[in-house]
Amino acid sequence: MTKSQYFNLCNDVTSEIKKAVSGLIGKPEAGVTLRMGADGTPTDKIDEVAENAAISVLEDDGRSMLFVSEELGEKRIGGKPEFTFVLDPIDGTFNAVNNIPFYCVPIAIGKSDLSDIKYGFVKNLVNGDIYCAEKGKGAFLNNRKIRVSNVSEISKLSVLSYSHRPHAMAINNHNVRRVRIYGSAGLELCYVASGIFDAFIDMRGMLRITDIAASKIILEEAGGTITDDKGELLHTPLDVKKRVNVIASNGFVHDKLLETCVEE
Amino acid sequence: MTKSQYFNLCNDVTSEIKKAVSGLIGKPEAGVTLRMGADGTPTDKIDEVAENAAISVLEDDGRSMLFVSEELGEKRIGGKPEFTFVLDPIDGTFNAVNNIPFYCVPIAIGKSDLSDIKYGFVKNLVNGDIYCAEKGKGAFLNNRKIRVSNVSEISKLSVLSYSHRPHAMAINNHNVRRVRIYGSAGLELCYVASGIFDAFIDMRGMLRITDIAASKIILEEAGGTITDDKGELLHTPLDVKKRVNVIASNGFVHDKLLETCVEE
Repeated sequence: MTKSQYFNLCNDVTSEIKKAVSGLIGKPEAGVTLRMGADGTPTDKIDEVAENAAISVLEDDGRSMLFVSEELGEKRIGGKPEFTFVLDPIDGTFNAVNNIPFYCVPIAIGKSDLSDIKYGFVKNLVNGDIYCAEKGKGAFLNNRKIRVSNVSEISKLSVLSYSHRPHAMAINNHNVRRVRIYGSAGLELCYVASGIFDAFIDMRGMLRITDIAASKIILEEAGGTITDDKGELLHTPLDVKKRVNVIASNGFVHDKLLETCVEE
Repeated sequence: MTKSQYFNLCNDVTSEIKKAVSGLIGKPEAGVTLRMGADGTPTDKIDEVAENAAISVLEDDGRSMLFVSEELGEKRIGGKPEFTFVLDPIDGTFNAVNNIPFYCVPIAIGKSDLSDIKYGFVKNLVNGDIYCAEKGKGAFLNNRKIRVSNVSEISKLSVLSYSHRPHAMAINNHNVRRVRIYGSAGLELCYVASGIFDAFIDMRGMLRITDIAASKIILEEAGGTITDDKGELLHTPLDVKKRVNVIASNGFVHDKLLETCVEE
């Protein structure tokens, strides 16, 4: 299967999801909890509609794969899997349900672990931006090559930070230039890849592999660094029950962030 | 001048701004700093283009007003002012310049102080949502009446919070349900008005009257409470150089928030 075939498949899936959820954006019924998902968090109606749209495209496609997704967990499609297709049907469900224009669909294609992802694809469902990367071949936003920033001073950083603890917050609105929390980790990590932001920190122990698998390869191919909070590379099985802490950056500030976050 | 005349004027202004900036969203030249604005912060190209589009509509309108805006400060349009037209040409400039789909245009119509605003109008430039209110007549989102939430427990709050200080953060991702920072105070305050979020806190001492004048009346008309960090109502002249701290909420958690923020 060639790169363009993979990306066409990702594009078909995200287009179908966009169509399927368009009537649900901002609607109360979109946020009705149907059950607990395989990832241990509630499955809302909009999540299920999006996941079903994806499955429908993948079943029609005819290739054999292991489908890994937040709501149903794992599903074999076809015979012996050629690859693993990792999906968060909607990343930013709270935003989508409340018509806050910030949510995306991240897709990663790999084997069995976060460390062997080959393709990453993230579509911003609001404005249509597509971020993608193939291992070893660079990262792109709408076919334009992207690259991380080169800011290295803490005081000049624009940071996406979910690392809030009550009495010792290392990164905050008083010591960096800008802190934002948009509520869609997949898309936020792409902003670090494209150099709009310099770092992303999530120390809540809540991120799933479906949130970060696609953006991880996009960020790395854009020159960035992504590790856990000990500075270790992320070796995590493609299992939606796993939770990780993430420190991601342009690379130039990574060691400084690791120091501050250990203090935290 | 009737309510519908005011709102038509606001609608004309925001429509012209949307048209004028549409080619600049996500473009590097949009973020080029031209000079320091009257509010003491840099005027980027997109801010100036938006402000000029507004002035053009207001000058054609023929009514006499005092125009108060972030970039140029104050300008009399026509003869003796009938009212004061308070504008932030783009609230969320960083987002707009970087194609992050979260920015709005807030407009307030009043006399001389934040406490005597009569009309508030906020347009989300990304998805077209319009929030508006007239003093004493309720608040509306796209002509549907809106109302604040009734959540009163700190642990269940969804909070928009810019109140980060290093060693004593009272509201954080560990003691409330959800913290978000989208980077457009005008729109974020409307989310408290419509009940999506329960509170908004900004203790950085950086908010301007142009950021909050419109949303203040919208929030109050939706049943919410907005004060400074001492719990005092906001009595602030309509002067873009002024800076305020703001605690805004559904009312049910206001006293608790004031207590925690005093600790901070």
